[in-house]
Amino acid sequence: MSHNSFGHLFRVTTWGESHGAAIGCVVDGCPPRLALTEADIQPFLDRRRPGASRFVTQRQEPDQVRILSGTFEGLTTGTPISLLIENQDQRSKDYGEIKDRFRPGHADIAYELKYGIRDYRGGGRSSARETAMRVAAGAVARRVLEGVTIRGALVQMGDDRIDRAAWDWAATEENEFWCPDRGAALRWEQRLLEARKSGSSLGAVIELVAEGMPPGLGAPIYGKLDADIAAALMGINAVKGVEIGEGFAAAALTGEANADEMRMGPDGRVLFGDNHAGGILGGISTGQPIVARFVVKPTSSILTPRLSVDRFGQEVEVTTRGRHDPCVGIRAVPVGEAMLALVLADHLLRQRAQNPDAPSEARLPRN
Amino acid sequence: MSHNSFGHLFRVTTWGESHGAAIGCVVDGCPPRLALTEADIQPFLDRRRPGASRFVTQRQEPDQVRILSGTFEGLTTGTPISLLIENQDQRSKDYGEIKDRFRPGHADIAYELKYGIRDYRGGGRSSARETAMRVAAGAVARRVLEGVTIRGALVQMGDDRIDRAAWDWAATEENEFWCPDRGAALRWEQRLLEARKSGSSLGAVIELVAEGMPPGLGAPIYGKLDADIAAALMGINAVKGVEIGEGFAAAALTGEANADEMRMGPDGRVLFGDNHAGGILGGISTGQPIVARFVVKPTSSILTPRLSVDRFGQEVEVTTRGRHDPCVGIRAVPVGEAMLALVLADHLLRQRAQNPDAPSEARLPRN
Amino acid sequence: MSHNSFGHLFRVTTWGESHGAAIGCVVDGCPPRLALTEADIQPFLDRRRPGASRFVTQRQEPDQVRILSGTFEGLTTGTPISLLIENQDQRSKDYGEIKDRFRPGHADIAYELKYGIRDYRGGGRSSARETAMRVAAGAVARRVLEGVTIRGALVQMGDDRIDRAAWDWAATEENEFWCPDRGAALRWEQRLLEARKSGSSLGAVIELVAEGMPPGLGAPIYGKLDADIAAALMGINAVKGVEIGEGFAAAALTGEANADEMRMGPDGRVLFGDNHAGGILGGISTGQPIVARFVVKPTSSILTPRLSVDRFGQEVEVTTRGRHDPCVGIRAVPVGEAMLALVLADHLLRQRAQNPDAPSEARLPRN
Amino acid sequence: MSHNSFGHLFRVTTWGESHGAAIGCVVDGCPPRLALTEADIQPFLDRRRPGASRFVTQRQEPDQVRILSGTFEGLTTGTPISLLIENQDQRSKDYGEIKDRFRPGHADIAYELKYGIRDYRGGGRSSARETAMRVAAGAVARRVLEGVTIRGALVQMGDDRIDRAAWDWAATEENEFWCPDRGAALRWEQRLLEARKSGSSLGAVIELVAEGMPPGLGAPIYGKLDADIAAALMGINAVKGVEIGEGFAAAALTGEANADEMRMGPDGRVLFGDNHAGGILGGISTGQPIVARFVVKPTSSILTPRLSVDRFGQEVEVTTRGRHDPCVGIRAVPVGEAMLALVLADHLLRQRAQNPDAPSEARLPRN
Repeated sequence: MSHNSFGHLFRVTTWGESHGAAIGCVVDGCPPRLALTEADIQPFLDRRRPGASRFVTQRQEPDQVRILSGTFEGLTTGTPISLLIENQDQRSKDYGEIKDRFRPGHADIAYELKYGIRDYRGGGRSSARETAMRVAAGAVARRVLEGVTIRGALVQMGDDRIDRAAWDWAATEENEFWCPDRGAALRWEQRLLEARKSGSSLGAVIELVAEGMPPGLGAPIYGKLDADIAAALMGINAVKGVEIGEGFAAAALTGEANADEMRMGPDGRVLFGDNHAGGILGGISTGQPIVARFVVKPTSSILTPRLSVDRFGQEVEVTTRGRHDPCVGIRAVPVGEAMLALVLADHLLRQRAQNPDAPSEARLPRN
Repeated sequence: MSHNSFGHLFRVTTWGESHGAAIGCVVDGCPPRLALTEADIQPFLDRRRPGASRFVTQRQEPDQVRILSGTFEGLTTGTPISLLIENQDQRSKDYGEIKDRFRPGHADIAYELKYGIRDYRGGGRSSARETAMRVAAGAVARRVLEGVTIRGALVQMGDDRIDRAAWDWAATEENEFWCPDRGAALRWEQRLLEARKSGSSLGAVIELVAEGMPPGLGAPIYGKLDADIAAALMGINAVKGVEIGEGFAAAALTGEANADEMRMGPDGRVLFGDNHAGGILGGISTGQPIVARFVVKPTSSILTPRLSVDRFGQEVEVTTRGRHDPCVGIRAVPVGEAMLALVLADHLLRQRAQNPDAPSEARLPRN
Repeated sequence: MSHNSFGHLFRVTTWGESHGAAIGCVVDGCPPRLALTEADIQPFLDRRRPGASRFVTQRQEPDQVRILSGTFEGLTTGTPISLLIENQDQRSKDYGEIKDRFRPGHADIAYELKYGIRDYRGGGRSSARETAMRVAAGAVARRVLEGVTIRGALVQMGDDRIDRAAWDWAATEENEFWCPDRGAALRWEQRLLEARKSGSSLGAVIELVAEGMPPGLGAPIYGKLDADIAAALMGINAVKGVEIGEGFAAAALTGEANADEMRMGPDGRVLFGDNHAGGILGGISTGQPIVARFVVKPTSSILTPRLSVDRFGQEVEVTTRGRHDPCVGIRAVPVGEAMLALVLADHLLRQRAQNPDAPSEARLPRN
Repeated sequence: MSHNSFGHLFRVTTWGESHGAAIGCVVDGCPPRLALTEADIQPFLDRRRPGASRFVTQRQEPDQVRILSGTFEGLTTGTPISLLIENQDQRSKDYGEIKDRFRPGHADIAYELKYGIRDYRGGGRSSARETAMRVAAGAVARRVLEGVTIRGALVQMGDDRIDRAAWDWAATEENEFWCPDRGAALRWEQRLLEARKSGSSLGAVIELVAEGMPPGLGAPIYGKLDADIAAALMGINAVKGVEIGEGFAAAALTGEANADEMRMGPDGRVLFGDNHAGGILGGISTGQPIVARFVVKPTSSILTPRLSVDRFGQEVEVTTRGRHDPCVGIRAVPVGEAMLALVLADHLLRQRAQNPDAPSEARLPRN
C-alpha cells in the first residue's frame, strides 16, 4: 500500500507539511557500501531550491539536508537512510485568510472533503515543498544508477515550444528555465517577467531523458516501466499529463512510421533507427534512451480574484497573495529527474532479483 | 510488488499467454455479498472480443468466462474470485516465421533481452489477449462501484479528431469505433477500410469519463488517484501517453483560465464552473466527473516489410502476416474503461479504510 | 496487501474452495529458464494427497496438477505460472447438516461474522484443501532453491515426543507419519488407530530443517527471515505456535548456554558450536541449518457431539461426520516444507536485489 | 515490500541506529481527526525506557519523542506522522573493542555477511534501541483502537513460571517485571540480582491479551490475524517463539478438549466455554480475547568470555562489557504490546475496507 511511499525495492517514504517543523524522508532498500554524504545530495536540492532566482517563489529556504541514519563512515550500510530538512521561512501569517477558503485549482477542497481537517498553512501536505524530499531521495537513487545519465529540460512554456533543432544540453545550465534552446530562453524570460508582474501564471512541458540504462527493466504486466514512470510523473504536483517517446503524436502516425526499425551495430549492439518508443517496448526498456514528457499546469496561485466557496458552504472570492512561482514547471525539472531516478533505481533492483544474469547492454545473441 | 498484479485492496492478478491453454485472473479483496455470475461479466468481454467486426482482428475467440471460485449461490463470498477463459483459436502456425525474429515496435526484443526466453506464439504474454482478463476483472469492479457510470469513447483516429460539440454518448453504441460523433464515425470507417486494405495501421486517442464517484478518493502523496490512473492506462498495450482533464493543453492556458471556479449549488453541493482538473485536485477526487485520455499507437503489426534483427544477431526483414487490428485503439476502449473501474474500486476501498465517514457527495459544510 | 497472496518477489496467490470446481494458484516472479513441468510438482502433491493412507482423510482426490501458463517448452519464461487442480470427490451431501451450524474449533463462525456469507461445503475457503496449492507452489520454489535441502519431520504426536538421539531422516520415508524415530512411529501407529476408532483427534509438532542456504537472507527490521517464517507457518491451518531453533526452551537457558560460539573451519568457513539460534541471528540467516517447529492442534472434526450455536442464534449440538484426518499434523509436514521453501525463495530473490555480491557461504574475511 | 516498514494500511517505517544522531519512524495511513500529542505517546515510551530500574540497561536516555508532522492543532490530519527521538547517551567508546569482533548470539556476523559493512556501535541497526519507535508507533495505533485494551505480562523468567491462579493485572504495575503474580515477582527479583551480579542473563516468556476487539479481523489465507501477530512478535529482538491461545500445549490435547464450545449469552452474544483458540479461528478474530505469547532468549551480552571470530577470519574471545539488560524480556513487554496494537490497528482498517458492515460484536444472527 502506498500513501506516502514510492517504489518497491528502492522505497522512499516522505513526510512533512509546508509549515511544520521539518520535512523528511526515509530511503529503504538502498544497497550497502555506496559512497553517500550530504554533499552528494545538496547540489540537487540547490537546483530545486525556492528563492534561487527571480522566476521562482521568494520563500527563503536554505534546504540544508541532514542524513540521520543509514550511513557509516561515508558509506551506506543497507539500513534505512533518514533525510531531514528543517523548515525555516514559515510565514504563516500569509495564509490566515485562506484558512477557511478553498483556493480554486488547489487541493484545499479535496483535502477538506477527504479528511475533514487540513493544515491550511501553505497548502500543508499538498504543498510542492514536499518535492524537496523527492529530489533528495532521487540523489540517493543516482548512486545506485552509476553510469546512467538522467537529465531534464523545459521544452514548452505557455504555448511557446522550443526548436528541437536548437537543442543543446549545455544551454539548460545557462538559463534559469532549464531550457535547451537559447532562443526560446530569451523569449521566455520576457514572458515570465510579464506574468509575474500581472500576477498570472504559465504552464509548461518538461522532457526527461535517461541514457545508459541496461535493457530489460520493467515487469510486465502491471509493473511496466512506462506505467511506473507515468505514475511517478503524474504524481508530481500540478502535473496533468505524461507521455513516453512519441506520446500523443503517435496517434497521427502510421504503423510504418512509428515502428522503430532495428539493425546490428559493429559492436554487436542492436541499433534502432528512431526512438518513437521512447526506449520502452511492452513495458520493458530496450537499451535506447528513455524519453518521457510531462505537462505542468499554470499554478492557481494568482493575484486575480476567483470565485470560490468556504468550509461553511458560503460563496467567497479568493486571491492568493503568498509567495509563489509564476511558472511552477521550472522547479518541476529537478523533481521530474528525481522521480525518474527513483523509478529506474527501483526497477534495476527488481531486475537483479528476477533476472540476475540479464545483460547490461542490448547485445545479440544474448548469451 | 507488482509484476502481474494490479491494485492494493481490490487486487487483480492475471496470467496466461496468447497461445497457451487458457488465460485467467484472480480478483482478491472483493467485498462479500455482491451479486455476481458469469452473466455480469460476459457482456463486457463481448465488447472487447476479437472477431466481432470487420475492423478488429479476425481471430475467433468466444471468450466465454468461467467463475471458478469466490462466489456461492450467485453472491461473492469475500474470497478470491478466479476467472478463466480457454483459448480456442490458437493458430500457432501463423507465428513460426517470427520465432527467432523480433517484430519492430513489438515487445519481442525486450522480452528476449530481459528473460532470454519467450513464448513467441502470438506475442505470448505481451499479447493484447491478456487484456480480456482486465475487462473481466473490471466487470467485477463495477459491482463494487454501484451508482457510478464509467464510459469510454474514441475521440481521435489517426489525425482526425471528433467535433466535441457533436458528442452523443448514444452514438458510441451505434458504430464500431465507440465514436461519440456520428460524422467522425463515417469518416473513420472509410479510413480504416483503406488502412486494412493496405495492411497499414492507425493510432487513436480514447477518452474515459467516470460519473457519480464520491469525492475524497486518492491517497496523497504516492497513491494519488491521477497517478494510479496514469499507471493503469499507460500499462495498457501500445499506450504512449495519458492525460487528466485539460492534459497537455493546460500548458498553454493561464492560471486564471485553468483554475476551476467554485460556487454553491441549491442543494448544498459544490459546483465547479469548468472541469479543467478532470475531477482531481491534489491527487484527490472532487466529486466532479473524472476525465482521462490515453493515446494508443498504431500497431506495428503491418504488411510492409521492416528491417529488424534476429536472436542470433543477424539483420533480417519482418512482415507481420497474422490476424491483427488495423486500429488497436478501438478494442482499447473497453479495456480503458475496465482499468479505470479497477482503480476506482481500489480507491473506494482505500477510502473506507482510512476515512470511513467521508461524504459520498461534495457537500459543504462537510459535517 | 495480502489477502490470498504470499511473498513479495516470489509471490503466490491461491484461490479456490473445498467443493468448488477447482483450486489453483498463480506463481509470480519466478526467474526464467528453470526447468519446470508437471512432473516436477506432482511428487510433492502426492505426499500431501488425501486418501493416501489409513491415517488421513479418505476423500479421494488424485490432485493432478496442470500448468496453464508461464512455461514454454519445459522452461519457465519469467511470466506468471498458473497451476490448477480440479476437485473430484465433492460429496456435498456430507456437509448439509452443518450448513447453518458452526463447528466448534473451526473457522465457520469467524467467516460468518466477518463476511455474513460462507461456502459451508467442506469448510469452503478455510478447508485444508487449499494447502495443496501451497505444496504445488512450494515445488516451484524448490527450483529456485537449487542446492538447498528442505525437509520436515513429525517430532511429537499427542504428548509423545520422539527421541532425538534416534533421529534418522531415512525413517521419515518409511512410515506414514514422517517420523524420524522408528520407535516412536510404532507407538504412534497404535495411538492413531485408537483415535480414529473413537472419532477423536491428536495434535502434533513438526520440525523443519533447511540446509545449504546462503547466509545473509532476511531483511531487518520488518522483513526478518524468522518473522516471515513465523507468519508462513502460523498461517497453515490449525497451527497455534511457531519456534525457531531453541524456541520456548530458550527461556530456561542462560546467556552463556544459549550463545552459539564460533570458530573458523579449515576451509575458511565459520563454524558454530551449537545451533540454538536455528540458523538465524538478528533476523538474518548465518549459513547454519535453519530450524523451525510448529504445532498443529488436534482437529475439531470429531465424532463426539459438541455444544454450539447456529446462524440464527440458537444453541445446537454439532457432530462432524465427514471424512477427516485423526491427526492433521501428518499432512502438515509437506505443507510446512512448502511454506519454508516459499519464504526462502522469496528472500533469496530479495537478497539478490539489494546485495547482489553477498557470499553464498559463511566465509571470512567476506571479501 | 517490507524491509523497515510494518503493516499495510496502518503502516510504520522505522529508521535509526543505536548510536546515530536520532531514531525515528513514520506512521502512515492513520485516520484523521484523532486527538494526538506527544503526551499521548510519552507514557508508553517511559515504560520501555532504559535506565528506568536496576534491572534494565543503565544507558540514560530520556527518550523524549517529538511529532514533526501529521498533526494540526492536536489532531491527526491523515497525513504521515513523523516521530523522532534524539539519541543522548551514546558512549561509543564502550564498543570499540567489538569493532571487528562478532559477539556470539548477536546479529553482528549476520550483518557482516549480508552487507559487508555495519555500524558496530551498540549493535547499530540491530540494537533493541529501535524498539522505542515501535512503542511510539504503537501508542498512535492505540488511538485507532478506541475501546480496546491491550496488556502484557511476564509469565516466565528463566525456568520459573508464574502461578496463573495468582494472576492479577494490577500486580504488573507494582513490580519492575510486569509480573502478574506477586509471589513470582519476589522470587524473580532475587534471581535477577544474582544474574546481574554474575554478568549472566535470563530468558523470559511474555503473554499479551487484547480485549474488546471486534470479531472478523484477519484476512484469509495469507493475511491471517494470527500469522501477522506471529510475524510481529517474532520480529522483536531476541524472540525465538510465538504462540496463540493454547500454543504448543495444544499438541497434547484431544480434539474434544481443544474445541471451544459455544453457547448464546443473554444479550445475543456468542459465548465460548474456553479460549484454547486464543480468540482466533481460521485466522479471523472471534470476539474473544486475543491471547499471544512469545519467548525472549537470554541476551548474549554477558561478562563470561566466549569464543568467536573476527572480520579477518581469526579466532578471538569476546566479552561484552557495555551496559546491558540481564533479562531483555522485561523491556520486551511494552514492545510486545505495541506490536500487537500495530497489527490490530492495521487489521481494523483492512476490515473496514472490505467489510464495512461487519459487526462490532459477536452477535447472532449477524444481520
